[in-house]
Amino acid sequence: MDFAEIKNILESHDHYTILTHKSPDGDTLGSGFALCDVLRGMGKKANVVNSEAFPPRYGFLFENYAPMNFEEQYVIAVDIADTQLLGSGLSAYAEPGRIDLCIDHHVSNKQFATQTYVDANASAVALILYDLFRFMEIALTKTAAVCLYTGIATDTGCFKYENTTPAAHLAAAGLMAHGIDFSGINRKMFDVKSKGRVLLEQSAVANMEFFFDDRCSMLIITRQMMDESGMEPAEFDGLASIPLQIEGVEIGITVRQRHERIFKVSARTTERFDASEFCRSFGGGGHKRAAGCEISGTLEEVKDQLTAQLRVLFGYTK
Amino acid sequence: MDFAEIKNILESHDHYTILTHKSPDGDTLGSGFALCDVLRGMGKKANVVNSEAFPPRYGFLFENYAPMNFEEQYVIAVDIADTQLLGSGLSAYAEPGRIDLCIDHHVSNKQFATQTYVDANASAVALILYDLFRFMEIALTKTAAVCLYTGIATDTGCFKYENTTPAAHLAAAGLMAHGIDFSGINRKMFDVKSKGRVLLEQSAVANMEFFFDDRCSMLIITRQMMDESGMEPAEFDGLASIPLQIEGVEIGITVRQRHERIFKVSARTTERFDASEFCRSFGGGGHKRAAGCEISGTLEEVKDQLTAQLRVLFGYTK
Repeated sequence: MDFAEIKNILESHDHYTILTHKSPDGDTLGSGFALCDVLRGMGKKANVVNSEAFPPRYGFLFENYAPMNFEEQYVIAVDIADTQLLGSGLSAYAEPGRIDLCIDHHVSNKQFATQTYVDANASAVALILYDLFRFMEIALTKTAAVCLYTGIATDTGCFKYENTTPAAHLAAAGLMAHGIDFSGINRKMFDVKSKGRVLLEQSAVANMEFFFDDRCSMLIITRQMMDESGMEPAEFDGLASIPLQIEGVEIGITVRQRHERIFKVSARTTERFDASEFCRSFGGGGHKRAAGCEISGTLEEVKDQLTAQLRVLFGYTK
Repeated sequence: MDFAEIKNILESHDHYTILTHKSPDGDTLGSGFALCDVLRGMGKKANVVNSEAFPPRYGFLFENYAPMNFEEQYVIAVDIADTQLLGSGLSAYAEPGRIDLCIDHHVSNKQFATQTYVDANASAVALILYDLFRFMEIALTKTAAVCLYTGIATDTGCFKYENTTPAAHLAAAGLMAHGIDFSGINRKMFDVKSKGRVLLEQSAVANMEFFFDDRCSMLIITRQMMDESGMEPAEFDGLASIPLQIEGVEIGITVRQRHERIFKVSARTTERFDASEFCRSFGGGGHKRAAGCEISGTLEEVKDQLTAQLRVLFGYTK
């Protein structure tokens, strides 16, 4: 389907429900609230929903938002590749035929909606919407501009990562013209951490282990460390990027204890190694530079399994 | 002066020396090597010089560069606001009349050169050069694109900070079209840290102090910590941004011991406070959100002086 068809859809109905994915990030929320703002601006009724309460961290995206009462007519999912990502609170929408349209940028999209628009080359769903709204010749409000900027910035690591496209930069330039406080947004999204998070990082880094001539580093987060930090689960995101930030490290591993004998392992690699292949050997998977798996056992057993596999990868004979 | 005049200057001579500032950053080096690359592409002889050896951290900017032999005809300073920033190795150029042209983006530029082009609204000197080269209709090499991208990205904190302009994003989009490995550049510039740096950060954060209901945090780096880390002085850059990254902190202070009884203090503030005003009360200065000063005394005395001033600022009566 193309932008003309989506435009037609957005003009044809009166009431829209917009679904965002569980453990929501800046792109699903930014896209959802931007779309809602535009639809309401067109005189429609629209709501954004999530499996749980919207995280306060993203409060600036919905500070002027209040849910409306209406009878649902049309359902749009944004940034949702699979109905599993709806979460238990929205599981009713997982039934076939419940979602009318899905707008997404994941190549792995499961095509669960009646109609699906996927652009796997788009840095963010917010970028697809930015282009869509331009196609529709919509004058964005400042609120919509804040939401779209946040979606694009968060999904690209503030224009830092490989998935950043020239189009992402052009959109940022266009959105900045709306007078948004982009540096304040970036500070909230990328710089500010809770005191608990900072102290947890500190104690994890203090105990970081190095293997194979410092070419591998391993960050270990135990239940005890998590409990002592007093942090929300969502605050643990992003820890997996720490081990690879150390100069010379080619494989960065993060081991996070989920239950007594179950550990979630995240692997991050530089160009020389395939994280996805590494994690597949433990029954996991993911992308070339970022992948994950789950391993059972004591912490020592898990570390032994990981280092044995790493030894082979690095080509060490003993 | 305007771009037409600079174009005329770059076409009128055969041999150019390009000066970069001491303790060089991505913008002075990126600008310097981009200008050198363009001049050489025009059939001129050109060299980039610095007070000291170019830091290996920026090696990707000059991996294909070798100095040429020639008799100096014309001298251009890039990103240098004051002759004091030339450093001892280039102090001969501080004499009046030695520098023919200065291209800069600091509002504080001292107009020390025979001719000066300052655009204080430009995010980086590399952005000025990007626009200049477009004006001159120069087809950039990949090397020049890497250099200009690096200058813009580093001076804007990867498009994160207030000084990022729509023009900076447009330039990034244009430079990416040259097939540069921008994500690799960003990883080197923003993510990778030496093991020593990571461990120093960890021990500093572990001992970070909080004042006034956690609205102020203070990071203290003693000589001993620096000596034990085995780090190069340049590697200490960026530590000052850590205290303000903690949620709720409005004034982040970093105290770095320079000599037994001399401490360099950096202050970073959110919108509510003026860092420059705070540092002026200790004889220092700077920008509204980032400023510095030097205080003498024992560490305890310095901390007492700082907290006394902070108490007034925060409006605590005792």
